[in-house]
Amino acid sequence: MPNQLTTSTSILKAIACLAVAAGLHLGGANAAAAQASVAQAAPKSDVSYFKLANGLEVVVVPDRRAPVVTHMLWYKVGAADEPPGKSGIAHFLEHLLFKGTQKNPGGRFSQTVAAVGGQENAFTSSDYTGYYQRVSKEHLRTLMDFEADRMTGLVLTDEAVVPELKVVLEEQSQRVANNPRARLGEQIEAALFLNHPYGRPLIGWRHEIEALTREDALAFYRQHYSPNNAVLVVAGDVTADEVRALAEETYGKVKPVAQIGPRRRPQEPPHVSPRFLSLADARVQQPSMQRSYLVPSATTAKPGESESLDVLAYVLGHGNTSWLYRKLVVERDIAVGAGSWYRGTALDQTIFGIYGSPKPGTTLSQLEQAMDTAIAEFIAAGVSAQDLDRAKNRLIADSIYARDSQATMARWFGAALTTGGTIASVQGWPDRIRAVSAADVINAAKTWLDKRRSATGYLIKDASQLEDKRS
Amino acid sequence: MPNQLTTSTSILKAIACLAVAAGLHLGGANAAAAQASVAQAAPKSDVSYFKLANGLEVVVVPDRRAPVVTHMLWYKVGAADEPPGKSGIAHFLEHLLFKGTQKNPGGRFSQTVAAVGGQENAFTSSDYTGYYQRVSKEHLRTLMDFEADRMTGLVLTDEAVVPELKVVLEEQSQRVANNPRARLGEQIEAALFLNHPYGRPLIGWRHEIEALTREDALAFYRQHYSPNNAVLVVAGDVTADEVRALAEETYGKVKPVAQIGPRRRPQEPPHVSPRFLSLADARVQQPSMQRSYLVPSATTAKPGESESLDVLAYVLGHGNTSWLYRKLVVERDIAVGAGSWYRGTALDQTIFGIYGSPKPGTTLSQLEQAMDTAIAEFIAAGVSAQDLDRAKNRLIADSIYARDSQATMARWFGAALTTGGTIASVQGWPDRIRAVSAADVINAAKTWLDKRRSATGYLIKDASQLEDKRS
Repeated sequence: MPNQLTTSTSILKAIACLAVAAGLHLGGANAAAAQASVAQAAPKSDVSYFKLANGLEVVVVPDRRAPVVTHMLWYKVGAADEPPGKSGIAHFLEHLLFKGTQKNPGGRFSQTVAAVGGQENAFTSSDYTGYYQRVSKEHLRTLMDFEADRMTGLVLTDEAVVPELKVVLEEQSQRVANNPRARLGEQIEAALFLNHPYGRPLIGWRHEIEALTREDALAFYRQHYSPNNAVLVVAGDVTADEVRALAEETYGKVKPVAQIGPRRRPQEPPHVSPRFLSLADARVQQPSMQRSYLVPSATTAKPGESESLDVLAYVLGHGNTSWLYRKLVVERDIAVGAGSWYRGTALDQTIFGIYGSPKPGTTLSQLEQAMDTAIAEFIAAGVSAQDLDRAKNRLIADSIYARDSQATMARWFGAALTTGGTIASVQGWPDRIRAVSAADVINAAKTWLDKRRSATGYLIKDASQLEDKRS
Repeated sequence: MPNQLTTSTSILKAIACLAVAAGLHLGGANAAAAQASVAQAAPKSDVSYFKLANGLEVVVVPDRRAPVVTHMLWYKVGAADEPPGKSGIAHFLEHLLFKGTQKNPGGRFSQTVAAVGGQENAFTSSDYTGYYQRVSKEHLRTLMDFEADRMTGLVLTDEAVVPELKVVLEEQSQRVANNPRARLGEQIEAALFLNHPYGRPLIGWRHEIEALTREDALAFYRQHYSPNNAVLVVAGDVTADEVRALAEETYGKVKPVAQIGPRRRPQEPPHVSPRFLSLADARVQQPSMQRSYLVPSATTAKPGESESLDVLAYVLGHGNTSWLYRKLVVERDIAVGAGSWYRGTALDQTIFGIYGSPKPGTTLSQLEQAMDTAIAEFIAAGVSAQDLDRAKNRLIADSIYARDSQATMARWFGAALTTGGTIASVQGWPDRIRAVSAADVINAAKTWLDKRRSATGYLIKDASQLEDKRS
C-alpha cells in the first residue's frame, strides 16, 4: 500500500505508517530528498480557521472536485518533545492509538474506515504527530466521532502494547538499522545537534525503544493529547459551517485534559567546530557523503531568510540543472550525483543538507573538496537572473500543482500550525519566494554554509576506503 | 586561595569553587590531568559506615594525627541529573547554597567557619555535588548543625540569586570561554556522547546558564537535596561513635523531603562512527589534539575491567616513561607531549583520553597517525613485566601517599558512594590493581581503544593550520 502521506511530496521529515498494518512502509524519511519549506502556496480564498472553546484549532480547506474529504488531526507533539531516555515514545504512541478505546475497542475505528472504502494513515515527526483518513464526505462525522473519542479515551493493555513494541522495533530495523544511509543520517544528526533533541533519532534509539512501556505511552499521551494541543484539518467537499457544526458536536465535547505550556526545547549553543564522521557498512555499494548545516527554520528565521534558503537549496542543488550537479557531475565528471536540500518546516533550528556520490576513481575526500570549491565558486559567481527566476517559478509552480492533492493541502496547513506557522504564513509563501533576490540567495549561502555549523559524514563499505587516517 | 579539593590530586572531573568568594578558582577540571579511578587504596581498618533512619549515609574515617576534622556532605546529584534545557543548574545551586536559611541567614555559616579559622569549599561534578569544611575538632558539631540546616532550609531571594548568576557566568568565561583547551574538551564531549547528559558541559551551556532562575534552583534543590540522597563523610580526629551521636542530633532531625528514585540517565546507543572535529582559537599558542573514547567506568565495568583501564592509562600515557611519551617525544621526536588518562569514577560510561602536542614541523594529522601507530605497536608488543609492575606499584603507592591528606581520603569515599561504589570497593582497589595482568591491559586496549567509540579534536590557531580540508 503506498504511503499516501509522504510519497506524494517528500517535504517533511516524518515517519508515516499505517500503524494497524505493522507500520513497515518506507516513507518520506529520506531527508536527502526533502526540499523546501512546507509553507507552500495555497489558495488564499476559502480556507477557514477557527478555534473551539476547548482550544482545538480547526482549518477547513474546501475542495469540491469530488465528494470526498480528507480528515487530519494533528497534535503539537513529536519526537523532540520526548522526555530524556524515552526516545521513540512519540512514534510508539502513534502506533498504540490504533488499539482502541472503551467506546470503540480494538480495531473498530480502522475497520469502519475500511468498511466505507476509506484510507487511513498516521505519521510522526520531530514536531508533530498526525492521524489521517480519507473517505466519502457522508462519513466525515463518523471519523470525527472516532477521532475525538481516541483523543483522550485510549485504553492500553499490556496485551496490546507488548506485540506493538515488536512491530516498532521491526520498523526501526527496516528503516534505520538495515539502511546504511539512514544510519549515516542518524550519526550526522547526533553529531550536528549538540543540545537540541533534533539530534535524537525520530524513531528513537533502539535500546530506548526496547525499554518503552505501557506506562510510558500513557504518560506521554496524557501529557500531550488534548484538544487544546491539537489542530484539526479538514479538506474536501465541505463548507466551513458544516465542519464547524460537526466539530462542535464531536471534538467540542472533549474536555482539555492536559495543561499545555509553551514548547521550549533545549536550544543549540553557538557552533564553533566543524564535525566529521564516517560510517563503514558492508552493505554499502556506492560510497557517498552528506553534510548537514544548522540553519534557521521558517519559524526561527528572520523575515525572508527561510525563503532565501528554499531558493538556495533549489538553485544550488535541486535536479540536473542545479549548480552542484552541473559542476560536479557534468563539468568535472567526478560525481554520479550531488545536490542540496532544506528542511524549512521545523519549530526550532533545522538542517540545510548537501550530498554527493563520487565516480569510481574519485575519493570521498576529493569529492568533498570539490563540493567546497563549487560552493565557493557559486558564492563568487552569484546567481544569474535566469537561474533565479527559473528556481522561483519552479518552486511556486510545484506548490500550485501540489494543490491538486487534497492531502497535500491539508498537510501544509497542519504542518505549519504545529510548527509555529499560521494560515497566512502558508498562503503568503509564494509572494515571499517571489521577493527573494539573487543577493539574498548568495547572502544565505555565505551566512549559513559555514562549516563550523556543520557535520559531514562519509558512508563507506569498509574503513580501508578512507584515504586518510580519520577513521 | 588554593582550591583545596581539587588541586591536591586531580582525579575527579569536578568544578570546585568557594562559592561565597565568587568561585573563580580554576580547579581540577582539566580532564587531561585526571588519572585513574577515585576508588583508590584506603586503610581497611577503622573506616565506619552506617545509615541514619532518615536515609543519610555516614562514613567516618579516623585520622588522629592532628586535632582537626574534615566534614563533607555529598549529594547524589550532579550536572548529569539536570533537566533538559537547564544545564548549569547543579553548579548554580551549589553557589546558591551559601545564601543562607531562615535560621542562619546570609553568610553566617561561612562567617562562622572563618571565625574559627576553618576552611570551606564546594564542588560540583556530573554525578555529585559536595560541601566541605575543615576545622578544629571541637567545632564539628557546629558545622553539622549548619550543614543539616541548609540541607532543606535554603531561602533564596532574587536579590541573592541574580548577582550570583553573574558570578557563575564569569566563572564560565574564565574556565571555558577564555580557555581554548576547555572549549575543545566541551566540543569533544558533546560529539562523543550521543545521548547521555555527560555530553553537556558540567558548568552548563552559557545560553542556558543565562536563563536560570531562582525557581529553577529551588525546584532542583527540592528534588535532590534531602538526607536520603546524601552521604556525610567525616575524616579526622573523631570516633565513629562520636560522629554517630552528633549526626543523630543534627542531620538526624532533617526529614526526607524528596522521593529519591534510581538514578537513570539516558544511555548511549552503540557507537559506530569515529568522530573528528577541529576548533580554531586565536589564543592557541601550541596546537594540540585530544581523543576521548567511550569506555566503562568503575561502576559500569565488568570485574577487573576498570582497573585494567587504570593500569592501561598509566602504562600507555602517564609521565615521561610511558609508552606514548617514549615513542612520540623521545624516539620519534615529533611531539612535545603525549599521554593518556582515564576517568574511572563515574556512575555511567565514561572517558579514556589520549592527547598530544606536535613539535614544529609536524602536523596534527601526522601526530595523530603516529599516535595510532604507537597504540598498535603497544598492543602488538604487549606490556613487559617490568612496566606492569612499575605501573601497579606506582598507582598503589600514590594512593597510599594520598592518604596523607584527610580531604583526599574523605573524597575517595564520598565520590565512590555517590557514583555507585561502596566502602569495600574503595578499600579493595589496591588488591584489584595488583590482580591486573599484562594480558588484561592489552585486552583493555584492544577492546576499548576502538576509534568508532571515539571523538578526536584538533586545537589550532586558525583554520589554515589544518593540512586537509576537514575544517
